[in-house]
Amino acid sequence: MTTAGTGGGALMRAAPGPEEIRRTNLGTLLQYVHLHGATSRAELTTRLGLNRSTIGTLTAELATAGLVSEAVPRGIRRAGRPSLVVRPESARVYAYALSIEVDQLRAARVGLGGTVLDRRVCDRPRGLPLPGTVAPLARLIHEMHREVDDDARYVGTGVAVAGRYRGDDGTVRLVPTDGWGAELGAALGSVGRLTVGNHADVAALVEHSRGAAVGCGNVVYLHGDAGIGAGIIAADRRLAGYGGYGGELGHMVVNPYGRECGCGSRGCWETEIGESALLRHAGRAGERGREAVLSVIRSAMHGDRQAQYAVRRVGEWIGFGVGNLANIFNPEAVIFGGTLRDVYLVAAAQIRSRMNAVALPACREHIRLRTPGLGPDAVLIGAAELAFARLLDDPLTVLTARAL
Amino acid sequence: MTTAGTGGGALMRAAPGPEEIRRTNLGTLLQYVHLHGATSRAELTTRLGLNRSTIGTLTAELATAGLVSEAVPRGIRRAGRPSLVVRPESARVYAYALSIEVDQLRAARVGLGGTVLDRRVCDRPRGLPLPGTVAPLARLIHEMHREVDDDARYVGTGVAVAGRYRGDDGTVRLVPTDGWGAELGAALGSVGRLTVGNHADVAALVEHSRGAAVGCGNVVYLHGDAGIGAGIIAADRRLAGYGGYGGELGHMVVNPYGRECGCGSRGCWETEIGESALLRHAGRAGERGREAVLSVIRSAMHGDRQAQYAVRRVGEWIGFGVGNLANIFNPEAVIFGGTLRDVYLVAAAQIRSRMNAVALPACREHIRLRTPGLGPDAVLIGAAELAFARLLDDPLTVLTARAL
Repeated sequence: MTTAGTGGGALMRAAPGPEEIRRTNLGTLLQYVHLHGATSRAELTTRLGLNRSTIGTLTAELATAGLVSEAVPRGIRRAGRPSLVVRPESARVYAYALSIEVDQLRAARVGLGGTVLDRRVCDRPRGLPLPGTVAPLARLIHEMHREVDDDARYVGTGVAVAGRYRGDDGTVRLVPTDGWGAELGAALGSVGRLTVGNHADVAALVEHSRGAAVGCGNVVYLHGDAGIGAGIIAADRRLAGYGGYGGELGHMVVNPYGRECGCGSRGCWETEIGESALLRHAGRAGERGREAVLSVIRSAMHGDRQAQYAVRRVGEWIGFGVGNLANIFNPEAVIFGGTLRDVYLVAAAQIRSRMNAVALPACREHIRLRTPGLGPDAVLIGAAELAFARLLDDPLTVLTARAL
Repeated sequence: MTTAGTGGGALMRAAPGPEEIRRTNLGTLLQYVHLHGATSRAELTTRLGLNRSTIGTLTAELATAGLVSEAVPRGIRRAGRPSLVVRPESARVYAYALSIEVDQLRAARVGLGGTVLDRRVCDRPRGLPLPGTVAPLARLIHEMHREVDDDARYVGTGVAVAGRYRGDDGTVRLVPTDGWGAELGAALGSVGRLTVGNHADVAALVEHSRGAAVGCGNVVYLHGDAGIGAGIIAADRRLAGYGGYGGELGHMVVNPYGRECGCGSRGCWETEIGESALLRHAGRAGERGREAVLSVIRSAMHGDRQAQYAVRRVGEWIGFGVGNLANIFNPEAVIFGGTLRDVYLVAAAQIRSRMNAVALPACREHIRLRTPGLGPDAVLIGAAELAFARLLDDPLTVLTARAL
């Protein structure tokens, strides 16, 4: 007796030819070492269910293409020939990652395998419109680019923004400016080739693939900045909705009698748990920004009553919203990123207790509340994954089709 | 410039053998005529992307197994040999469907293709516990079974309940009684073989595959009964969550200052839009049941001010919740089933207006608000799909493996 679907109607496929199988297998093997790092051929054989000679052929091809290297493992003293270890060529194959945040612009060079090779940051004066970010972002990238070895291979640039982009036609929505993407691409010049994603979405995906939510099929990632962003994973896939605008949890109304929100509605989650709510409750309504938030949290930890009240009040509403999300998504993990990470660390008990009051036991009993496993790099590594995705999908064609 | 995932890591597959391809193709063809009804061989060739001779072979096999029939279409006067029309054997291959509702028990015999061949209903005294439903349900089935032709082939029984069942081990959760499934199976005797699903889930899936939400990848189905059930489709799949308990929208808290809910929380959606809220606002707090709800709606249509107030008040909260769901899911369709269908029909303008106030334009602009395309049969046909799913997955093995 099971709960079943209604038979979704699988697409019929003709048998793939050997070339298609090879292409898929190359991508899968590369994806494996990209996510798991150095792996012996023997383990790849087991994990991927392919025989030794196939693994040997595939790794040789990827090595020739400069995507992986193979080496005898150090410190092995067993009899017999040791299994070669396959590593992603993290230092030689890389992507750029950009994160456009409310108060700062961050950039990183990220090697295949998710290694951050270089990172830069500069302030973003609050209110600086998106077009104004193009020049400083290009400068960060060009600074890093000057230090890259000639033989290193560039894959693309992933950009994380607070808004959401339409997947099918690239239309910019929920961000204030059209045309900005093209402008940024042009400013980067030869380093163009942009893929744009939402902060919380890319962080959710990368925490799911290599961070705090590995093995969790259903994940809610919450990102606190000036507002609240969210990325949702359901059954191992990003919940996108019809136009890619799913997951606007910051505008889930939690308090119908609450304050007006910038979106025109009232009592949105972001009006109750966002930066301005915390600062207002702490009696610091004139302040703003990440540093101001961290200062309230430090004050609360040092016993400041008003700061403690602010944290408690915001914690209540975080727990309330997470409880609702548990009833809706029955997730295994909820991850608190950005400034919500810091709030969570001081309000965890209260968040959990409020969540427990709101959520049905069956919906919440397996929930783990977590901070990002990749720390503040989650967004940057996630943005880089946007650029790596195409390479992983079809390694050889991507590498041979264009001068990198 | 597109929003991309982070490269999900496709599973590597060896090339499927001819037997596997044949099996998949048989299931896909049968699924096609099951969903779309009589289809010419020529159209199947186009729709499924297979050549004429393959379609011919597959339909012949399915016809031999008694799952489809082929006939020359009537009324065709074109030159040349007309393309045979393939029909599901609706009268000969069938499932039973049971729906256990608060006030009634419904049963149907549903033919392949989704045709309701027979239906029965009996009252369920409110408060009759689940074990008490076993005998009357078995009676409904046995009544229908006596009229079934000897050569008809039974596929299985699907049962729709208000609770949710754990997918992996069949554990009953969110319904009051364990062991009831086994008891019902035993009472049905040779007609056992139960698959259990949630009312709203099965209705959501069948409205998505053959009802009001065909072609919509993201759907929220809301079912009003004593409480509020929901089934959510995201990217064409049911949103199940970790344990199968996702979609408990009736217990999404919409009013933190609202009334206590039976679940122990406060202000759950169901406390604001459920049967008892409508009746209370209408000044009929002592009444209950579907008939009482319909009576309030009729009174509102005839100008009764208190009934109109009740409908308006409930409509406000329906719109509020749907607005939140738009922000969360960005769905193409929201479907109102059960008594919510009737409330929706008198409060549609208000529901939409409140939804518009809560939801971000990008999240709601493609939403269609709908009533079930399959009417009150949605739950029964959906329950039957639970039983058909295995057959459609592997038609010949299922039919030959056991005496049906």
